[in-house]
Amino acid sequence: MTERGLLIVLSGPSGVGKGTVRKAIFETEGNDFEYSISMTTRQMREGEVEGEDYFFRTREEFEELIAAGQMLEYAEYAGNYYGTPLEYVNQTLDQGKDVFLEIEVQGAMKVKEKAPDGVYIFLTPPDLSELKSRIVGRGTDEMSVIEQRMEIAVSEIEMMSHYDYAVVNDEVPLAVKRIKDIIHSEHLRVDRVIHRYIKMIKEL
Amino acid sequence: MTERGLLIVLSGPSGVGKGTVRKAIFETEGNDFEYSISMTTRQMREGEVEGEDYFFRTREEFEELIAAGQMLEYAEYAGNYYGTPLEYVNQTLDQGKDVFLEIEVQGAMKVKEKAPDGVYIFLTPPDLSELKSRIVGRGTDEMSVIEQRMEIAVSEIEMMSHYDYAVVNDEVPLAVKRIKDIIHSEHLRVDRVIHRYIKMIKEL
Repeated sequence: MTERGLLIVLSGPSGVGKGTVRKAIFETEGNDFEYSISMTTRQMREGEVEGEDYFFRTREEFEELIAAGQMLEYAEYAGNYYGTPLEYVNQTLDQGKDVFLEIEVQGAMKVKEKAPDGVYIFLTPPDLSELKSRIVGRGTDEMSVIEQRMEIAVSEIEMMSHYDYAVVNDEVPLAVKRIKDIIHSEHLRVDRVIHRYIKMIKEL
Repeated sequence: MTERGLLIVLSGPSGVGKGTVRKAIFETEGNDFEYSISMTTRQMREGEVEGEDYFFRTREEFEELIAAGQMLEYAEYAGNYYGTPLEYVNQTLDQGKDVFLEIEVQGAMKVKEKAPDGVYIFLTPPDLSELKSRIVGRGTDEMSVIEQRMEIAVSEIEMMSHYDYAVVNDEVPLAVKRIKDIIHSEHLRVDRVIHRYIKMIKEL
């Protein structure tokens, strides 16, 4: 019997560097997990490959999957759907491979409702003052816009309580190492492996 | 404010190699934890140093500490007490240092009663058949003795369910790496660090 893989969900506030850290993880050696491929209704761009960059589907097909409860999470941006297809994730986990999902906080919470046994990792800025400068430093927005962004960030950090781990993104290679340590050690949790030992005892 | 250290408890069945793995961990670089020094009533041997090898105490002193609830766990072997003094552990944790405790299963369960927020790691043999050969291979004991040991081992593996992690001791360097990954990632658990972030939010 193949042991089921782990669903690893990396999330965190806007601007914290989720995408950078995720890319850096996949550039390291010795990874035993698959990146979760998203589904979208937007047009395929030149060079993109079906089932590698995205699963490209029509609006009708996507909405059918939503209605059938087959999207782990989804959202609409600029008139197109983007989401995580449940079937791909489940098939990969059933093959004994871990699935790595990098996603916005709201999407992550939707995933957690459907897959509470996943490993939920919250990427945090080194401190909130740096987050503030990141939010302010983006442009020449009005103070009200900046304050609104700040409120969102605070509420997102409050969301940290729903996660299993908080990884500080002070330096990308350090954040990568922390996340890989978490993945390794999560595979050693007794509640994930005990059934293997119970089986051994029964076979004596 | 110094963050409190973690109490790390390594345990496992007799003969699994707890002592070897513990020694190998303390021979590696970059450890940020203290080995918990035991207390004993046995005579100090040549070359042993008070407060390094053991805390050497009289039987009366040891029994007073037991009566005062000041022993995290203790046992009597060959007419002498051996145990883990609560004060040393608490002082070290309060200094923000992790404390590493290598201990028999029964002692570990006593520690867990008093310190449920510790990290409990169960060292397991590669498989039960190897455990069996380890138990049988020790000498020329009678079958009844061997069977009794086997029963004890099975009950100890059933005890695994009370631990947080199960680390297979297939190769000592691999077991060492797994334990160090666990210690690193346990420091990133949200329920251990959330107060730091709540403080940041309050200070905005």
